Amino acid sequence: MKKRMQTLMAMLLLAVMLIVTACGDQEGQTEVKPDPSPAETEKVQADEVEVIAPHEGLNQAPIPLIVERISENEVNVEMTAQITDIEIAKGEMYKAWTFNGEAPGPVVVVNEGDIINFTLKNLDPAIPHSMDFHAVHAAPSEKFIDIMPNEEGTFTYPANKPGVFMYHCGTKPVLSHIANGMHGVIIVKPKDGYPTDSEIDKEFVLIQNEWYKYNDLDDMMNGEPSQVVFSAKALQEGDLNTNGTTYSLQETPLLAKVGDKVRIYVNNVGPNEVSSFHVVGTIFDNVYIDGNPANHMEGLQTVMLPASGGAVVEFTVTEEGSYPIVTHQFNHATKGAVAILKVTADGLDDGSEVMSH
Amino acid sequence: MKKRMQTLMAMLLLAVMLIVTACGDQEGQTEVKPDPSPAETEKVQADEVEVIAPHEGLNQAPIPLIVERISENEVNVEMTAQITDIEIAKGEMYKAWTFNGEAPGPVVVVNEGDIINFTLKNLDPAIPHSMDFHAVHAAPSEKFIDIMPNEEGTFTYPANKPGVFMYHCGTKPVLSHIANGMHGVIIVKPKDGYPTDSEIDKEFVLIQNEWYKYNDLDDMMNGEPSQVVFSAKALQEGDLNTNGTTYSLQETPLLAKVGDKVRIYVNNVGPNEVSSFHVVGTIFDNVYIDGNPANHMEGLQTVMLPASGGAVVEFTVTEEGSYPIVTHQFNHATKGAVAILKVTADGLDDGSEVMSH
Amino acid sequence: MKKRMQTLMAMLLLAVMLIVTACGDQEGQTEVKPDPSPAETEKVQADEVEVIAPHEGLNQAPIPLIVERISENEVNVEMTAQITDIEIAKGEMYKAWTFNGEAPGPVVVVNEGDIINFTLKNLDPAIPHSMDFHAVHAAPSEKFIDIMPNEEGTFTYPANKPGVFMYHCGTKPVLSHIANGMHGVIIVKPKDGYPTDSEIDKEFVLIQNEWYKYNDLDDMMNGEPSQVVFSAKALQEGDLNTNGTTYSLQETPLLAKVGDKVRIYVNNVGPNEVSSFHVVGTIFDNVYIDGNPANHMEGLQTVMLPASGGAVVEFTVTEEGSYPIVTHQFNHATKGAVAILKVTADGLDDGSEVMSH
Repeated sequence: MKKRMQTLMAMLLLAVMLIVTACGDQEGQTEVKPDPSPAETEKVQADEVEVIAPHEGLNQAPIPLIVERISENEVNVEMTAQITDIEIAKGEMYKAWTFNGEAPGPVVVVNEGDIINFTLKNLDPAIPHSMDFHAVHAAPSEKFIDIMPNEEGTFTYPANKPGVFMYHCGTKPVLSHIANGMHGVIIVKPKDGYPTDSEIDKEFVLIQNEWYKYNDLDDMMNGEPSQVVFSAKALQEGDLNTNGTTYSLQETPLLAKVGDKVRIYVNNVGPNEVSSFHVVGTIFDNVYIDGNPANHMEGLQTVMLPASGGAVVEFTVTEEGSYPIVTHQFNHATKGAVAILKVTADGLDDGSEVMSH
Repeated sequence: MKKRMQTLMAMLLLAVMLIVTACGDQEGQTEVKPDPSPAETEKVQADEVEVIAPHEGLNQAPIPLIVERISENEVNVEMTAQITDIEIAKGEMYKAWTFNGEAPGPVVVVNEGDIINFTLKNLDPAIPHSMDFHAVHAAPSEKFIDIMPNEEGTFTYPANKPGVFMYHCGTKPVLSHIANGMHGVIIVKPKDGYPTDSEIDKEFVLIQNEWYKYNDLDDMMNGEPSQVVFSAKALQEGDLNTNGTTYSLQETPLLAKVGDKVRIYVNNVGPNEVSSFHVVGTIFDNVYIDGNPANHMEGLQTVMLPASGGAVVEFTVTEEGSYPIVTHQFNHATKGAVAILKVTADGLDDGSEVMSH
Repeated sequence: MKKRMQTLMAMLLLAVMLIVTACGDQEGQTEVKPDPSPAETEKVQADEVEVIAPHEGLNQAPIPLIVERISENEVNVEMTAQITDIEIAKGEMYKAWTFNGEAPGPVVVVNEGDIINFTLKNLDPAIPHSMDFHAVHAAPSEKFIDIMPNEEGTFTYPANKPGVFMYHCGTKPVLSHIANGMHGVIIVKPKDGYPTDSEIDKEFVLIQNEWYKYNDLDDMMNGEPSQVVFSAKALQEGDLNTNGTTYSLQETPLLAKVGDKVRIYVNNVGPNEVSSFHVVGTIFDNVYIDGNPANHMEGLQTVMLPASGGAVVEFTVTEEGSYPIVTHQFNHATKGAVAILKVTADGLDDGSEVMSH
């Protein structure tokens, strides 16, 4: 449809110009200047999705997440709302609204039963931001509230259910704040662990999200995503200060060794689409829906993730080679939602080329 | 895309008009009149989605649902197909095809094991309607059949599985009948109750549905919904004659008191979209998929509802304040699918402003 | 939107032509010829979605699937990638990329614990194809690899999880290969059967898939499907050489007799959409998610299938008549995803007209 329209538009433009020329030629003196040259209409388009003024030229250096355990069941977490350029596709920068200069933001890991003292600093000079943790019990109108530019706020709430939870900015319009980059994952480790903990050799965190036309609420509401991507995040036992990284997972593979039982903590932060999470070449031995040990399924080829839904999935890689990880909604995989798990004899990168998908 | 196109179209129109003027000016006598004025193209658009003739000016007053228990395991239910204006957004009326003058229709509540004697009266002067209860076993070609205008039909079938079931008009084209408003929920209460019945302080029924361009089958098939909304319905123990109400749940909150364990019977009647049902500020303690006590899950942040899928979700509200209820497919929440649960010290509305989302 | 645009375009074209005529008339000698006649723009459109050159005029006769059991736990399977015309709607042919001349391809049935020796022959003269079985453990970069035109390859891998798995071509761009027809189902029968095996009277295999504009990757990525359909496939105990058939399931019903407990092995192969699988007039007694006996649910009205997700669903038909089978995402049902299960006294077709939906 799009292409056909563009073709038609181009032809019409040409026709209009020819007519103008023809009309002009007849008298040699017409002064009509056809306004909508392709260059100018491009500009109109660009104008629609412009960076808001106070963000122009702003690219705040990522400030690390702070996680401090202050007692067995209490932890201080500090995060920063900031405006930072994110590479969402090769060479394509997006002036993202972020937590800590990452989109998705850094992974937060706490324990079931923890009290979280959470501080949000808002370095965005222009607009308020906030934090909605799906992992906690709190009155949103009291504790997920807006923090004004250059201010900070601290809130306390319990995390008493285990799982792989989404967090996101809850400031209006919420869709804009999530779609512009303010989302991430908080993992609440189950008090008694997962029944299959002892079998696991390797753990990863993967997050699926969509990107839309820059800060274009109409496109976010009615359009198709321009990119759908996975990000991998570090998860280190005993080290809660995770500096997550976002990179092209089709070029920089995750690593495991032959025979490993691999666990992925996954969440689909949306903002709009559901995910059909699948690892090519294997079957999930165990799936815990939303990461709760009580919600156990077996032998799934694909796990359905609602928008903001999570899972812990576990599987075995039996042979050396590349295992693509995808959403099997293949329009989205084609738009970027592919990661590669590379399996080698020793679990180290042997430098071989990975399978593209 | 839309906006850009409109901009381009406007520019082209302007260009065409300028040319016409220019051409005319050359001779001062051209009689060409460019046809497509904006006003006229608007009219073309409006014509496409016109109310069908016999419905014009028709606004049938809602006729109450009738539910009469005639024995321990048998119940008479009478519903009415009628054409009634529904406010689907502030000030936006939709001449809906309805059950009993509501869209969604009234909630029907029966018990597991009941025989239902169901009567459908069709007050629509123009087209047939019918009733497809997801809660019953029946041959659709015999018992979900069309009732002609100004006629009625009675059918008998058992409701022997507990759950939160969709009902809808099944007359062709089914998509039009559902999308124009003929949908609702029938709850079949489990014989032995839910394992968590004794913990529940407060119950609600919520229904998610989409609205499209008026009676525009092409838009229903290929377009994006113009609105996605929740409706709340009354659910009174021992009183099956529920007059459901549909209203703006962002302005008129549901009410609970601090510490309440809240249960919501939810169904996503579509017609097209799936739902990622979530309550901000809490986590579901228990979820029964499709409302069957056997399908128990725990600790979900978000429950995936297929089109026509239901659930019973239970959660605890620990603090005073506003808890938004959303589909976390945030394009749909932005189009209206937000309800507010207001939690106060005593469970009564304290008149405070609710959090918008 | 589409229609309005087309109306506007037509009006503009008319206006432009009138102007041209008018301008010309003024002098009687203008030579401007407006290029974009409707006929020519149609041609531009058609060009975009052209059959690739080596496939033009090619319609390879379906070559049967070969399944040979060579020992208790080992089976040889041979399939053929080929270009074959498929009727995707009444009178609408699609030069499909297929496995064995069918789209979806033939159903493969093996037993849990089998080793599969799989051979793929590629009769496509133009492009490579491959096979990605969701049912097996294998390194995709080694065993799901491209087979060049007119070549063949053999791979060995275990099928050690029971279920209803998708298979598909995994050659890049994967979306094109799936959407053009290279998908199907492999059933791995559970070693210990399903707990409900003894109750089942009748079994079917149903597959849901979408069709897009012919080989148009942009439409596959960003467009709405033109058709969404179900295909039924034969499933014969002890006969693994199934010649699946694809036909209009709204005209040729599946058959059962009154009182039958019916089982459907279903998979939604996408490539893009999720499915809300539902049978009108009944409720699923049992559902095994992805076909694994461990993932048991009860009393579902509708089962959510992710893209590439499967299920075993079982239900009882209590009365004579037609039971439509749909995805309750009704835009997709309206585009074709409806099958009819006809229930008669003796399970034979009595020739009566089936209910359309």
